[in-house]
Amino acid sequence: MQKRVGQYLMDAIRSVGVDKVFGVPGDFNLTFLDDIINREDMEWIGNTNELNASYAADGYARIKGISAMVTTFGVGELSAVNGIAGAYAERVPVIAITGAPTREVERAGKYVHHSLGEGTFDDYRKMYKHITTAQGYITPENAQTEIPRLINAAINEKRPVHIHLPIDVAAVDIEVETPYQYTAPAKQDVDSYIEIIENKLKNAKQPLIIAGHEINSFALHDKLEQFVNQTHIPVAQLSLGKGAFNEENLYYMGIYDGKIADEQIKAYVDQSDVILNIGAKLTDSATAGFSYGFNLENVIMMNHHYFKVDELRDEEVKLVDLLDSLLNIDYTADVNYPRYQVTNETVELSDEPLKQSTYFKLMQQFIQPQDVILAEQGTSFFGAYDLLFSKDNTFIGQPLWGSIGYTLPATLGTQIADKQRRNVLLIGDGSLQLTVQALSTIIREALKPVIFVINNDGYTVERKIHGETAPYNDIKMWNYKQLPFVFGMKETDVQIHDVTTSNTLATALDEINQNPNIMHFVEVHMDVHDAPEKLDAIGKAFAQQNG
Amino acid sequence: MQKRVGQYLMDAIRSVGVDKVFGVPGDFNLTFLDDIINREDMEWIGNTNELNASYAADGYARIKGISAMVTTFGVGELSAVNGIAGAYAERVPVIAITGAPTREVERAGKYVHHSLGEGTFDDYRKMYKHITTAQGYITPENAQTEIPRLINAAINEKRPVHIHLPIDVAAVDIEVETPYQYTAPAKQDVDSYIEIIENKLKNAKQPLIIAGHEINSFALHDKLEQFVNQTHIPVAQLSLGKGAFNEENLYYMGIYDGKIADEQIKAYVDQSDVILNIGAKLTDSATAGFSYGFNLENVIMMNHHYFKVDELRDEEVKLVDLLDSLLNIDYTADVNYPRYQVTNETVELSDEPLKQSTYFKLMQQFIQPQDVILAEQGTSFFGAYDLLFSKDNTFIGQPLWGSIGYTLPATLGTQIADKQRRNVLLIGDGSLQLTVQALSTIIREALKPVIFVINNDGYTVERKIHGETAPYNDIKMWNYKQLPFVFGMKETDVQIHDVTTSNTLATALDEINQNPNIMHFVEVHMDVHDAPEKLDAIGKAFAQQNG
Repeated sequence: MQKRVGQYLMDAIRSVGVDKVFGVPGDFNLTFLDDIINREDMEWIGNTNELNASYAADGYARIKGISAMVTTFGVGELSAVNGIAGAYAERVPVIAITGAPTREVERAGKYVHHSLGEGTFDDYRKMYKHITTAQGYITPENAQTEIPRLINAAINEKRPVHIHLPIDVAAVDIEVETPYQYTAPAKQDVDSYIEIIENKLKNAKQPLIIAGHEINSFALHDKLEQFVNQTHIPVAQLSLGKGAFNEENLYYMGIYDGKIADEQIKAYVDQSDVILNIGAKLTDSATAGFSYGFNLENVIMMNHHYFKVDELRDEEVKLVDLLDSLLNIDYTADVNYPRYQVTNETVELSDEPLKQSTYFKLMQQFIQPQDVILAEQGTSFFGAYDLLFSKDNTFIGQPLWGSIGYTLPATLGTQIADKQRRNVLLIGDGSLQLTVQALSTIIREALKPVIFVINNDGYTVERKIHGETAPYNDIKMWNYKQLPFVFGMKETDVQIHDVTTSNTLATALDEINQNPNIMHFVEVHMDVHDAPEKLDAIGKAFAQQNG
Repeated sequence: MQKRVGQYLMDAIRSVGVDKVFGVPGDFNLTFLDDIINREDMEWIGNTNELNASYAADGYARIKGISAMVTTFGVGELSAVNGIAGAYAERVPVIAITGAPTREVERAGKYVHHSLGEGTFDDYRKMYKHITTAQGYITPENAQTEIPRLINAAINEKRPVHIHLPIDVAAVDIEVETPYQYTAPAKQDVDSYIEIIENKLKNAKQPLIIAGHEINSFALHDKLEQFVNQTHIPVAQLSLGKGAFNEENLYYMGIYDGKIADEQIKAYVDQSDVILNIGAKLTDSATAGFSYGFNLENVIMMNHHYFKVDELRDEEVKLVDLLDSLLNIDYTADVNYPRYQVTNETVELSDEPLKQSTYFKLMQQFIQPQDVILAEQGTSFFGAYDLLFSKDNTFIGQPLWGSIGYTLPATLGTQIADKQRRNVLLIGDGSLQLTVQALSTIIREALKPVIFVINNDGYTVERKIHGETAPYNDIKMWNYKQLPFVFGMKETDVQIHDVTTSNTLATALDEINQNPNIMHFVEVHMDVHDAPEKLDAIGKAFAQQNG
């Protein structure tokens, strides 16, 4: 069948489950955008800028498994690199398509707009090599090999790929005999590794699993839980990847974040003699500055493309193959471990200024089992990662990449990926300011997330590291509650809440639950120096790391 | 004298005229920011995001000659690459400093936040190589050679440079014997080239100068005008670099933009037999898709690092050396040429919907001799580049890089660089949405530009290329007139104008002139498909180029 290259590409992207494409138009992608908007089974989501598009694509992929975005050559694709690099770091597959000048313009080395004016056309592609797992320059001749290779790479690596699509190529008709279909790579035999692990476990006094973000990326939750239910090995999670393990499971202990972890968890984890690190990375933010108390030599590292036990290393191995084989282990632990418990404290409501600690206690009661919770990498994340979530919650933060402003556009992506689930965004004023115009797209798409904006007058997360009262951590005070209206929201489609005390917060939370069919925008006033306990500690660790 | 490396760096940057530093705090730059805020002679301008910071730094440098900005590792520096690449393309020197993890953290390959989580630390530096003219990794040992090398490179090339500053290095004391001082590179003898040019001119029937943006970058206006006054060679400018030549000069003909130029100019330019291209690049947007009518073989190319006449080429040559030597040419032209004339038409005011053509006619009357005019790369630029400016006006657009959203943050930079001059921003709704939060910083810094926002419901510049009524060229309608207030402006510090007709525009312009000490924010309603004539033509040329 004859298809334009652009059609073939979008057919392939549709076939892996993508039904919304993010991006910003530009003259090197316009005619290709027609191949998106003319489809019945796909929707174009026009973003207010490319960074926001990349964050939205990241959010969408965290719900749907993969996403796609389109920018224009140079100005567009370069504005998106921060978001794409974040997806690379945290293993989120985003297909980043750049509409580019024609092959003829490139061959002639013409001084076209959006180029550096030097007749070169490969600079941006080369920049993308550092932040994507695969890259390709599409031609009519290679489209049916390169596009499959790139989409497969995104799926297999759970990382972004870059597609450079000259705008003339998109319009060329090609003969398509077999449409793209994803094929999984061959399984690797890792039985010998598993044998080693089994032996180690059989001699373990205090075995432990540390679960992390790659479980989320590769959607291996069920396999991991099955392994735990078979082996009874207790599990700690990192904040990076919270959601990797079902927190309601009997063998769940809680979050391990190095020296600031709960004393009981710390006692167990730090004394563990056999630690299965499954899809986790011991980053500075996840471990309060690498302050883990266990011996790294006791850790069996199982990451995607990294297996390590004692002197044995494998940098090819796939995480899914490791998980599959782990299920064959014949071992059952019999250990005392501190089971995770949330003391759902009754909060004494008052008219005193609201504290961060109370805010998160009330948030714990507010969260419903199906909610998607996004927590910005400021006070919000450091408070939220200690909340208990149900198996069906999805928790999204960005503690490895840590780009402030990420979560507002990410909420556009997560909410549009599944409009049925309630999305709850926890963000602060400093972060919101970076990407605020994403709210306009959320409104344009008639989405109804619940948005909590902490107004505490600046970058509190930075103040905790250095410059507590320094002017560079101050920001301009905005009239936050007017934001939805300036971006075109109708009065009837949103409820605005002003929260200053636990009493007003409790009222707001009630009202939100009573009116689930509109957007809620909550401004939460808290003191500039108040922060979740964990942030205080991590801030100090980060300051020390910079010394 | 003992100085911290951070102090030495800021001393050096101050010595080249920079007194404001743009950027966003992050934990890998916080302690270094103290070396900025603790100076009496420097001010930290905290931006709402890094892209906006890079655009502001670009704007500041276009007024002050050079600028500096500070971001944090990864998330910060990558958000700025689009702005830095634009400065590279259009030759604007920006010193881009990244506060980075310590040397120790890097050596150990730690998984720190803002890294890709793979233990590598050079990815972003490598990305910056493509968009900066020089790059350096600062250590205490090399600080006094690398920092001078990098600042000199920015000044000599009029292009951005990248400084990777590990945060521990910034705090190390070094013994400074001689503070940094700029030293110009040695002059190159180009007399032999000048001789060739002189001979060509002496045989020319219709000699011509095409002046372009490098004249602005290298501030060679006076030398160019002196050369023209000596030789009487008529001058055409490109839209890329408008301002390179004094438009009130007797020998000025006007803007040459290929086939869409004024018939009289086109007749002269296209028939020219000796064309001195001085600091100009014949880009697609400047020439309506390379539609110049002259013979390229008649062009003597004089660019920075590019001299070409017949078969002779020199890719080392410096533009300033060429200009200096041109002044020795013994030649006077005696030709008939169409002198530039603005027919300052009386505009018949009415209550009909305002047209783009009328908007720019009234703008011509409104502009005052010292104004800085910034025109966004949409209808605004394509209308404004035909206006007549005085010698003391500064006109800023970005027609080569063409990144929409550039001019609002750039106005922050230009206005804060010289608070005495009136800054007039001409922008459209689609562009404004990309970088809108820069308005908050303009307000925070108590700047008073005059801002015209064309509200014509979307990306008209794209509609002219493709997708005239396509949904991807639509945007969300905002309540633009509320923007200053949502960003914290006091009612008394701004006047809001709503313009729908030539009558209301004329009234608004009067009121602006009568109240020069406050900000003016003007929403200008015009029809979605109305555009300056030139944009209609260039849109068609761009569409054809993509075919």
